[in-house]
Amino acid sequence: MASNYVPTGIPGVDKILGDRGIPRGHTILVCGGPGSGKTTFAVQFLYKGATEHEEPGIYVSLDEDPEDVKRNMSNFGWDLDELEREKRLTFVNVSPVRLAPTDKLGLIQLGMKEFKLVKLLEAVRQSVEEIQAKRLVIDPATMFMLQYPDEIDRMYALKDLIADFRKTGCTNLLISELRGTGLEREHQFEEYLAQGVILLRTVVKDDNLSRVFQIEKMRGLAVDNQPRPYEIASGGIEVYSTLTVFR
Amino acid sequence: MASNYVPTGIPGVDKILGDRGIPRGHTILVCGGPGSGKTTFAVQFLYKGATEHEEPGIYVSLDEDPEDVKRNMSNFGWDLDELEREKRLTFVNVSPVRLAPTDKLGLIQLGMKEFKLVKLLEAVRQSVEEIQAKRLVIDPATMFMLQYPDEIDRMYALKDLIADFRKTGCTNLLISELRGTGLEREHQFEEYLAQGVILLRTVVKDDNLSRVFQIEKMRGLAVDNQPRPYEIASGGIEVYSTLTVFR
Amino acid sequence: MASNYVPTGIPGVDKILGDRGIPRGHTILVCGGPGSGKTTFAVQFLYKGATEHEEPGIYVSLDEDPEDVKRNMSNFGWDLDELEREKRLTFVNVSPVRLAPTDKLGLIQLGMKEFKLVKLLEAVRQSVEEIQAKRLVIDPATMFMLQYPDEIDRMYALKDLIADFRKTGCTNLLISELRGTGLEREHQFEEYLAQGVILLRTVVKDDNLSRVFQIEKMRGLAVDNQPRPYEIASGGIEVYSTLTVFR
Amino acid sequence: MASNYVPTGIPGVDKILGDRGIPRGHTILVCGGPGSGKTTFAVQFLYKGATEHEEPGIYVSLDEDPEDVKRNMSNFGWDLDELEREKRLTFVNVSPVRLAPTDKLGLIQLGMKEFKLVKLLEAVRQSVEEIQAKRLVIDPATMFMLQYPDEIDRMYALKDLIADFRKTGCTNLLISELRGTGLEREHQFEEYLAQGVILLRTVVKDDNLSRVFQIEKMRGLAVDNQPRPYEIASGGIEVYSTLTVFR
Amino acid sequence: MASNYVPTGIPGVDKILGDRGIPRGHTILVCGGPGSGKTTFAVQFLYKGATEHEEPGIYVSLDEDPEDVKRNMSNFGWDLDELEREKRLTFVNVSPVRLAPTDKLGLIQLGMKEFKLVKLLEAVRQSVEEIQAKRLVIDPATMFMLQYPDEIDRMYALKDLIADFRKTGCTNLLISELRGTGLEREHQFEEYLAQGVILLRTVVKDDNLSRVFQIEKMRGLAVDNQPRPYEIASGGIEVYSTLTVFR
Amino acid sequence: MASNYVPTGIPGVDKILGDRGIPRGHTILVCGGPGSGKTTFAVQFLYKGATEHEEPGIYVSLDEDPEDVKRNMSNFGWDLDELEREKRLTFVNVSPVRLAPTDKLGLIQLGMKEFKLVKLLEAVRQSVEEIQAKRLVIDPATMFMLQYPDEIDRMYALKDLIADFRKTGCTNLLISELRGTGLEREHQFEEYLAQGVILLRTVVKDDNLSRVFQIEKMRGLAVDNQPRPYEIASGGIEVYSTLTVFR
Repeated sequence: MASNYVPTGIPGVDKILGDRGIPRGHTILVCGGPGSGKTTFAVQFLYKGATEHEEPGIYVSLDEDPEDVKRNMSNFGWDLDELEREKRLTFVNVSPVRLAPTDKLGLIQLGMKEFKLVKLLEAVRQSVEEIQAKRLVIDPATMFMLQYPDEIDRMYALKDLIADFRKTGCTNLLISELRGTGLEREHQFEEYLAQGVILLRTVVKDDNLSRVFQIEKMRGLAVDNQPRPYEIASGGIEVYSTLTVFR
Repeated sequence: MASNYVPTGIPGVDKILGDRGIPRGHTILVCGGPGSGKTTFAVQFLYKGATEHEEPGIYVSLDEDPEDVKRNMSNFGWDLDELEREKRLTFVNVSPVRLAPTDKLGLIQLGMKEFKLVKLLEAVRQSVEEIQAKRLVIDPATMFMLQYPDEIDRMYALKDLIADFRKTGCTNLLISELRGTGLEREHQFEEYLAQGVILLRTVVKDDNLSRVFQIEKMRGLAVDNQPRPYEIASGGIEVYSTLTVFR
Repeated sequence: MASNYVPTGIPGVDKILGDRGIPRGHTILVCGGPGSGKTTFAVQFLYKGATEHEEPGIYVSLDEDPEDVKRNMSNFGWDLDELEREKRLTFVNVSPVRLAPTDKLGLIQLGMKEFKLVKLLEAVRQSVEEIQAKRLVIDPATMFMLQYPDEIDRMYALKDLIADFRKTGCTNLLISELRGTGLEREHQFEEYLAQGVILLRTVVKDDNLSRVFQIEKMRGLAVDNQPRPYEIASGGIEVYSTLTVFR
Repeated sequence: MASNYVPTGIPGVDKILGDRGIPRGHTILVCGGPGSGKTTFAVQFLYKGATEHEEPGIYVSLDEDPEDVKRNMSNFGWDLDELEREKRLTFVNVSPVRLAPTDKLGLIQLGMKEFKLVKLLEAVRQSVEEIQAKRLVIDPATMFMLQYPDEIDRMYALKDLIADFRKTGCTNLLISELRGTGLEREHQFEEYLAQGVILLRTVVKDDNLSRVFQIEKMRGLAVDNQPRPYEIASGGIEVYSTLTVFR
Repeated sequence: MASNYVPTGIPGVDKILGDRGIPRGHTILVCGGPGSGKTTFAVQFLYKGATEHEEPGIYVSLDEDPEDVKRNMSNFGWDLDELEREKRLTFVNVSPVRLAPTDKLGLIQLGMKEFKLVKLLEAVRQSVEEIQAKRLVIDPATMFMLQYPDEIDRMYALKDLIADFRKTGCTNLLISELRGTGLEREHQFEEYLAQGVILLRTVVKDDNLSRVFQIEKMRGLAVDNQPRPYEIASGGIEVYSTLTVFR
Repeated sequence: MASNYVPTGIPGVDKILGDRGIPRGHTILVCGGPGSGKTTFAVQFLYKGATEHEEPGIYVSLDEDPEDVKRNMSNFGWDLDELEREKRLTFVNVSPVRLAPTDKLGLIQLGMKEFKLVKLLEAVRQSVEEIQAKRLVIDPATMFMLQYPDEIDRMYALKDLIADFRKTGCTNLLISELRGTGLEREHQFEEYLAQGVILLRTVVKDDNLSRVFQIEKMRGLAVDNQPRPYEIASGGIEVYSTLTVFR
């Protein structure tokens, strides 16, 4: 029987997670700036799941063409096409443009939002069932959430999405963009709804920039929230255990 | 006869509260960032009440599934299911979605807001009566308050809520999200209406992050408002008595 | 005959006011963050007036139940109920909810604003006359001012309020909330209209927080505007004469 | 024949103005926070003009009752009532409320703005002519300018006002409120339109606050824009010649 | 034949511009705070052109009365009236009020914007032709640009203005107001459209303020963008070659 | 056959890009403040492509007249006219004004946006085909993106643009303006959509300003994101390999 925790397989991360991993079934927000390695982190989570933990995974792209993602990621030595052929990974393109019905006046129409959510979930469920996926990535959530200009609608939509992901049985990463920077940025509302929050940030340290990994939140786990240095190395993301000068 | 103060039972907190506790019947805002342990603090308050002070308690969830809350909290060694069976604790799910009447055009309709408040209070009163509860937690207040886009409506709604909680005879924690961060954040209006404000924050100290507990406000008590370090330890929240370097 | 200045009776404050006090008939804004002791300051001003200077006083509550205020304040050893029986103090509840006429569509209607101001002033005048009050407190002004979403309406309303208070012959404290924090906060417009401004703030000093009292403005008096430490002690607010490290 | 420059008579100020004064006929913005002594500065300018330079002056109040202004200012030993009787000073109350025509629906109506400007100018011109005034103060400009919610309307209104003041032959002070604080505040648009800008600010210096006077701008004069300390002393504003630590 | 570069003649500036000057025909934004000497800089550019480089110039005023400008500038020893009589300089008043057609309802009407731009350009072209001008100053651009509340309209209007200035063959200074202050101000969109940007700022240095000149941008020239101190001296603006402590 | 990476030919840049260059077919955002050398960087990329790598290039101008661009760039010793005659470079003027249909009421009409995108792409494709271009520059993207006031429309438009550029087979630079400054600026949404982000910034270092080059993001490449000094030298942009003090 499956354990209650899902090891990420990403060097350094599981140790911070108390040698366990992410609570099974939870939806974790992976939040970072441009170039912080959000997609690398997410694909690495799927790759490790598929190759080391026998957990098939789904990568749902809402922005970039999955073929581009796979090509970019091949630099880390991950043969994602092969894994896809073996039905251990599936890359799905759920670009919002494809979901949009033909309309002559504008892109957003009454009733269309619900439809899109349904479409996204349909695509997810079908893929999950097909390969019996245990891990799921949505990259990025921005496109999905920008559809709801009203703040409360957006909260409900995200809440519903997390609830639906729960039903798939998968452990999920939701990739999200960090708008504000620095230590005194405003918290984004997604950070409150997600069951866990991982931050990939760049901070200034002496004369250089330093990449900093932090588990800000992890429901159901006594979380070590200290920031730690990480690198985008030749084999993917590596998080170091030494504590870093945060400022 | 009941004392005028309600001990929280949370290590370190009652001492700061002058060895007494929270004034009975007051509504205290527990305000923190993502991953700060707001829910842990609140459930610990209920757990200690039920097990050490013979005060049954109600946890009203407006976001997460109560079953998830209980599972997550079991990591602290709290058998909440057992307490619920013994009618010493009740977990209520008052998700806004469940309250919403079927409508085809949108989620928010004229007149629906009032209805929701009534529903929430009805659920609260019924549960309080059933187990003769003395402690009450609403987690989080965000979902409730976002319904009122107009600032003055929101103030009145919160004022009414606090007045209604008063009538139940319970001592209440209202969980709230901290949007701004840092020392110079704008005060949130809830901080003025609540009868007490407890802050759970994360500050930068030398090379690490430090969790900081502060009682910003406690009507009816000469409050010690110094920030102090706290931890989310294996048995729940622990607040230390040493003063901390705040910046 | 009455002097032109009204001693506050609050330890340390009158000395800063040049051993005189507040100019008689002026309206002073007492501005502070949550938990800063604004209400304590105001009630102390009334209590000292009633017990040491033979000046009866009115406390008009726009938020909290006056019974709660009295109970909370009894911790400072002030028997406010007794003073109320002796007609030396009056606590009035002018909650906005009570003023609102029954309406089915919303709380704010055309023409209702003026009505509320009239109601508030009526309540004030009647109470003042009844006990021949010399001191008046409105706590807090926020509820009153939020009624006017337009900035210029709000300015006129506050200007009118101050003019009407003038006519009562009382010396007045208007309790107000400090939204911004820190040294570089934007000035709030009320600070310009009031005849005096007292700030109750919390600043960071070395490893602790420090409560800081400051008379920012006092028309008709060469004001000492240096910040000084204060405490909420067992007998109420105490302001110290030593200068404090402000940051 | 009159010189091209108008000495302010305020200790320390004319020296900074190159031993000359303000260019005759110019409109100078006096900009400060609450309690900074803006009104004291302006009345002192009129008082010195009337008593030392044979220049009668007009004080136009748009906020406070002129009787209150005179009473408050008597603390500096200035007998303004006597000067008014001698027609060397005139205090005019041009409160916006008095200008407003009776209307049942709201304070601001189509066409009313222009009317107010006309009224204000009429009051000014009449008073100037009556005592052959050479100095004019408008205190504060805020009430006047808030009438124009649109930024470009506000700029034109202020531009027109300055042009009309020019025609009176008076040298004018326009009292204005400083909203932002600190060194990096946004410049307010009035600072660009006025022919001179005098700032009265409070800055933090070591452990105290320090009042700082600065001539930010003075068209037609090679201006010394260094900040200098000032005090509100028993005889009015005094500006010191020593340079101050600005931060 | 004319060189491709136009020497400004302002002490210190041409040296920073590689001993050449401003590229002929370009439109340079001169951006500064209140009292920074923007107008002095611009008039000095025209004066030097007329007296030292045989380049007649046009000063188009959109705010201040040109007679006032000339009087103020006479303090620098520049006889602008004489130069105007000799047709080496022309001062034009293109105040927006004069351009406005008589209308009873408001200042801004449909179609009026285009008209104003046309009027402004007509005035410019006519003056340029009359004295064969080679240098042109618009002071300030604010009044012109505020007419376009929509950001994209404003960009197009400025783009068109710069294109039209190009056709006159003149080298142009567009005077502009700096709203934000400090090192981390947001860039204003005009800085991107102009072919060069000169900043006149005031920065804090130790205990004094320091005026700082900087060429932020100069298309077609390898620009030295280091900040340097400048003064408004008895003969006009002087820029020093020593590097300054910028913070 | 073409390599998968496109060397920029700009001194110092390819080394930072791992001695390879930009992934072929990607769209890179070049983001900088006014005067930072964005256009120089872009034209240098095209020039080096045409002269050293046999890759013809297209420069699409959305703001400045291409003739001006060529003249300005001739200072770096680049004979762009000659390259254009040899069909190794093409400079295209796609100013938005030219695209606009004649309309009497305003610039932006229903349906016009789509038309503009189509026009832009048509111009791009035609030019690419004509000279078999391999490199493409759009300078600046601002004009194009400001057309979409709604954030989600803007995202889709940029997403579509990048997808269409992909189809041309070119490697693309999108020139963009940096609004915020400083280390804690908000990330701009374009940074998330582009496949790479290059920042050209100016930071304060001791007493001088320092130009700083940084590759913030480069999909498909383990990117070195350290900031490094650069200069706009006589031969164009030069990036140095020494690490710089970033603040």
